[in-house]
Amino acid sequence: MNAEVISVGTELLLGQIVDTHAPRMARILAECGIGCQRRSTIGDNMDRLVAAIRESLSRCDVVVTIGGLGPTLDDLTRNAIAEALDDSLENVPEVAEQLKAFFDRRGIRWSESILRQAEKPTCARLIDNPHGTAPGLICEKNGKRVVALPGPKGEFNPMADGPVRLYLGSLTEGQVIHSRVLRICGIGESHVEDLVRPFMNSENPTVAPYAHPAEVQLRVTAKATSLAAAEAIIQPVVDDLSSILGEYLFGFDDTPLEEAVLAELVLRESTVAVAESMTGGGLAERITAVPGASKAFLGGAIVYTGLMKQDLLGVRAETISTYGAVSGECAREMAEGARSRFRSTYAVSVTGNAGPTAEVGDAPVGVTFIGVAGPGGASVERIQSRGLREDIRRRATQVALVNLRRAIRQS
Amino acid sequence: MNAEVISVGTELLLGQIVDTHAPRMARILAECGIGCQRRSTIGDNMDRLVAAIRESLSRCDVVVTIGGLGPTLDDLTRNAIAEALDDSLENVPEVAEQLKAFFDRRGIRWSESILRQAEKPTCARLIDNPHGTAPGLICEKNGKRVVALPGPKGEFNPMADGPVRLYLGSLTEGQVIHSRVLRICGIGESHVEDLVRPFMNSENPTVAPYAHPAEVQLRVTAKATSLAAAEAIIQPVVDDLSSILGEYLFGFDDTPLEEAVLAELVLRESTVAVAESMTGGGLAERITAVPGASKAFLGGAIVYTGLMKQDLLGVRAETISTYGAVSGECAREMAEGARSRFRSTYAVSVTGNAGPTAEVGDAPVGVTFIGVAGPGGASVERIQSRGLREDIRRRATQVALVNLRRAIRQS
Repeated sequence: MNAEVISVGTELLLGQIVDTHAPRMARILAECGIGCQRRSTIGDNMDRLVAAIRESLSRCDVVVTIGGLGPTLDDLTRNAIAEALDDSLENVPEVAEQLKAFFDRRGIRWSESILRQAEKPTCARLIDNPHGTAPGLICEKNGKRVVALPGPKGEFNPMADGPVRLYLGSLTEGQVIHSRVLRICGIGESHVEDLVRPFMNSENPTVAPYAHPAEVQLRVTAKATSLAAAEAIIQPVVDDLSSILGEYLFGFDDTPLEEAVLAELVLRESTVAVAESMTGGGLAERITAVPGASKAFLGGAIVYTGLMKQDLLGVRAETISTYGAVSGECAREMAEGARSRFRSTYAVSVTGNAGPTAEVGDAPVGVTFIGVAGPGGASVERIQSRGLREDIRRRATQVALVNLRRAIRQS
Repeated sequence: MNAEVISVGTELLLGQIVDTHAPRMARILAECGIGCQRRSTIGDNMDRLVAAIRESLSRCDVVVTIGGLGPTLDDLTRNAIAEALDDSLENVPEVAEQLKAFFDRRGIRWSESILRQAEKPTCARLIDNPHGTAPGLICEKNGKRVVALPGPKGEFNPMADGPVRLYLGSLTEGQVIHSRVLRICGIGESHVEDLVRPFMNSENPTVAPYAHPAEVQLRVTAKATSLAAAEAIIQPVVDDLSSILGEYLFGFDDTPLEEAVLAELVLRESTVAVAESMTGGGLAERITAVPGASKAFLGGAIVYTGLMKQDLLGVRAETISTYGAVSGECAREMAEGARSRFRSTYAVSVTGNAGPTAEVGDAPVGVTFIGVAGPGGASVERIQSRGLREDIRRRATQVALVNLRRAIRQS
């Protein structure tokens, strides 16, 4: 069984946005044992879209389309699928009712074009979309299948991972490609490679490292006839790698560092607060992105002025005038001040210059001080980052989490 | 003149890495006045790659391939292009010499397969690759053109932006595709469509709406013989649309809402602070992502507990016990408290439940209160969002910025 994925949208085609849905769909297909043989991106153009769907159907068993199910005139996927399958569209009264109720409830202005989302090819069954208005479609006709998902991320992700994955999994008992990812912080990529070199020539599973800012990932990938068989191939290697990597391994797969750090805190019934200057809330944002963060996260102070560093966190005016706001001394007092203010077990601080420019007297762009205060005292690290403002800020939040994790585990 | 882009590589096809090169190539094509009609991703498979190149050549004037020019056995693009063009490969002795010298100089282990990179279709001329070993290719045969670029980012980017852009630009005698984007907040997509419907049938420029969370974008795209001519076609339409959209229009092109809001503040010599519960720093993070945010942004309090809402922002214990932390009353006191604490002209607050679950006594998932305090008093809006935790949080920051903008402009 094989498949092709078609991403629909002129914005995508012209490169105004980067397509992350199609790669995700390809991974889901692989996990369901369906080979993805081609992916295409087509603009909002009826003739080209119909042609692309027909071509894909001529080459494979399942075509998955992403996007173009919205209410506007350039949302053409529904119509294009019907035409490619020589089918017609019918109105689904229940969906029309749901749409009207949804718009009423939200007080959003109604427009007749919204009713296009209540149409479907006659051969299609609908996939419920609890996160939006456009249902997905599963069309089966003459042995060919077209699955259509909506483009908005909050609608695509749950539909792809839920009902579409189930449907695709039901189509095949085939070859499964399965991966686990080991997530590592505190050491660099070449160090990781040195540690795990004997595993890197393995053919099944394969072991491959990928470098990210202040994180290294090792992907262990197996081919097998079932998910269970793939896991049986992967697990011993994951165990060996885990024991080699020790405390540098912070989690697996989709576990971000902030989630691992929160788990360490919850485990110890400890809490954390943040004091952010340069990252401007980005560190707290990452921590609170984790569901249940309130179990260990108390809050934070974003202090963009010297006055606020003093007023909210008790940084001494003398510290700022002597060493500057971008200094190890200031980072230390920010962390200690936040710990005391929020009455938390730990506090993390970030101060630095994310650029793009440094005025006379400023610290150079990229210079960042990370402070961690805890029951064992406070420590500060100076890092020098390169890249864009967003890269410098992101890396600072990553190093802050790495250092917080170290402080928690050493206490 | 039109083009298709083919990305080559099994890792790309299976979604193990996200393709950012193809979107970049599509933007370069547009800037050179070449319409990109389709993008495809093909794995490292000779037959499928040859078929895909042939199909693309049958539909368009220029095919751009990305990747698959390396030295290993699964790098097939060179061979596939030759076959698709009914051409043969020849060895280029000078390139072979360069390769050997390069490997000697770097002390990298030599392998005979590296010499594959010294081959080219006889109809091709080489594009120098100062950042790697595989030259690019420009193939012209029977009125069809194939341009091949290497996949590694450090090699792709300079080649795409340098010699390939020059070559593509030389093919079009000044046929340019140019866009402007109008960015709109405070009204929904269907409402925008209703307002601008007469423009949506326009063929040059085209006008197309795109919905984003609490934002609508209108893209106005013109084809013309020069950039100046395209701008002359676009500008009157942009002017008309701007006057229809009025205060809902907050900016153009790459200007995010946070940047527009900061500009409004700086214009009025006003300042802002934030008080965040549910968004956990995400609102401040967006504001401080803008270079120079410190001109108007003073700081913020992230208050994840009732105690901290009281201690840092002066929210009354009674308010929380009577109405709950997720309430209009609490949002109002948070905004007023932040305004007073930070001595800012405006303050914005967010409190809500981003989910994924609501405990007994909690506000339902998605319920969010946004407060804005300013010289004219305080106001609160209740919104109900759907979707994932990240969507609910993101939409809250967007509505907070929309409401802050309204308050600033109304004062």
